[in-house]
Amino acid sequence: MPPIRIFVTGGTFDKEYNELTGELFFKDSHLPEMLKLGRCNLDLELRTLMMIDSLHMTGDDREIILRQCRSVPEDRIVITHGTDTMVETAATLARGIADKTVVLTGAMIPYKFGSSDGLFNLGSALAFAQTLPPGVYVAMNGRCFLWDRVRKNRQTGMFEEVPASRR
Amino acid sequence: MPPIRIFVTGGTFDKEYNELTGELFFKDSHLPEMLKLGRCNLDLELRTLMMIDSLHMTGDDREIILRQCRSVPEDRIVITHGTDTMVETAATLARGIADKTVVLTGAMIPYKFGSSDGLFNLGSALAFAQTLPPGVYVAMNGRCFLWDRVRKNRQTGMFEEVPASRR
Amino acid sequence: MPPIRIFVTGGTFDKEYNELTGELFFKDSHLPEMLKLGRCNLDLELRTLMMIDSLHMTGDDREIILRQCRSVPEDRIVITHGTDTMVETAATLARGIADKTVVLTGAMIPYKFGSSDGLFNLGSALAFAQTLPPGVYVAMNGRCFLWDRVRKNRQTGMFEEVPASRR
Amino acid sequence: MPPIRIFVTGGTFDKEYNELTGELFFKDSHLPEMLKLGRCNLDLELRTLMMIDSLHMTGDDREIILRQCRSVPEDRIVITHGTDTMVETAATLARGIADKTVVLTGAMIPYKFGSSDGLFNLGSALAFAQTLPPGVYVAMNGRCFLWDRVRKNRQTGMFEEVPASRR
Repeated sequence: MPPIRIFVTGGTFDKEYNELTGELFFKDSHLPEMLKLGRCNLDLELRTLMMIDSLHMTGDDREIILRQCRSVPEDRIVITHGTDTMVETAATLARGIADKTVVLTGAMIPYKFGSSDGLFNLGSALAFAQTLPPGVYVAMNGRCFLWDRVRKNRQTGMFEEVPASRR
Repeated sequence: MPPIRIFVTGGTFDKEYNELTGELFFKDSHLPEMLKLGRCNLDLELRTLMMIDSLHMTGDDREIILRQCRSVPEDRIVITHGTDTMVETAATLARGIADKTVVLTGAMIPYKFGSSDGLFNLGSALAFAQTLPPGVYVAMNGRCFLWDRVRKNRQTGMFEEVPASRR
Repeated sequence: MPPIRIFVTGGTFDKEYNELTGELFFKDSHLPEMLKLGRCNLDLELRTLMMIDSLHMTGDDREIILRQCRSVPEDRIVITHGTDTMVETAATLARGIADKTVVLTGAMIPYKFGSSDGLFNLGSALAFAQTLPPGVYVAMNGRCFLWDRVRKNRQTGMFEEVPASRR
Repeated sequence: MPPIRIFVTGGTFDKEYNELTGELFFKDSHLPEMLKLGRCNLDLELRTLMMIDSLHMTGDDREIILRQCRSVPEDRIVITHGTDTMVETAATLARGIADKTVVLTGAMIPYKFGSSDGLFNLGSALAFAQTLPPGVYVAMNGRCFLWDRVRKNRQTGMFEEVPASRR
């Protein structure tokens, strides 16, 4: 069983509802709770790199994620990430990582809101991270896409395959 | 994207609480609802073969599952199953199927009870079914085991690896 | 069993998460689903008057609610309302209704978010509406306050009693 | 705000699913969690008297509940109880208590199962306990019944009114 690194960057996954202001915000990651709920028994190391909406993620933020992916000893990495710019971060990582399996995943509905796709996506991302060859991937909607073959359809919220040249 | 067949056989996954008798029972499968929650966008065919507690599953029941796995056109199959005899069914299937990827999965807590591992397991099972070579596997606790290398630990409820010879 | 009228005006109670925009919005009221979940067996008439955030509620909106309370035949009325201006609406109603029991209630967390106080508040509001004499009340936090003896504490989110003269 | 005593006796309210045996069982009461979820701000004292299925409740158990109701200083009492023999316990209490408001309530679905009526019933029971005159009552389905005017309909699971003489 190869060890897997999980990096948390925020995204809808971890959003919560502030009952005093009526706004969504980030507090702590729900990943530990989700892994416990899934009775997950993998050899995992989890680190929170940032807790932000991926629409606010900068080039500097992406460099931090890239450096972290390169510096940790694990060869298999899952990154939780907002869906809006997940593909952009995947592209940054793909240009700097050649020998690791990196799987980005996220959620359309916050985990705390009861009807989230997060637990399903997390289960699939961890499975893809264990079985796919080195490369950078996006795991959403039960599928796994190579980083340069995917886009988020903003009308449907679904991730879909695109020819490599059309991105 | 290869088509995947899902066979439902019941198990804790699909148990519900009968509020008039206070007992657990089976009605309809929750798989369609779970796939919708996961925003799953795979090419799936779903069929319910039986709705039973796996402690009540007979050799005849296992033959039905085996025949169905062999007769459907799909090469990738996920089976939802009670955890108590999941390994036994996996062994039956392994003896009769050589050229398909079959992944059994289940849940420790019913999906309807709010704190179920089912959605996590379903996500991982569908991912393993897409990526693993032909063989019969058990996907639980975020991991995937070959059918002859796994047992359920009844004290912890966790699935764990065993040497092939010790089963 | 006296008939009870329920008026829906929106508020946190009925907010949902738009997974395409990441914003909160109103669609349909969750009251029917909540009443079913509570196995509620009262003689109820439910009508949605508006679906708005109570911070956006105008004097005209409050007049609509007042007219509706006066015109329906029921003497016992529950109103679901955003918490931010619930006390203000209660004051408007108190000035125009003398002979009916009107109970306003709401929620700090949307019903759809899984950890809502809404079901608890709805149960208490319906009970207060059945048992209290004519008057306009706010039912929150398990308590019931006369309209001119209550304010929302914006630091704690709790409703608390105030002397009648201090409002 | 009069102080309210809550007595926990078990019942469906507090049942949990044992994932190792697949059976329902009692561990700790969920009342504190439910009161927190409801942002309940009443002056409450909570004591667990027993954690049993009401079908297993004996005459001795009922005497314990009666003695406790009589001995505590609070005049307003809510009792969580299994629904099957709630009316029988109410009758025992009514014969021994004249000057307190006692409200029994329960749930058809365990609180932990996500779709429980428990939070709704708890909200209504606490409201009835604050507003009704001395007497022993059963609060279910949004309604409140005098102890000698109610029965549980075992076909529908609903509590319904009966003429006093027909019990």
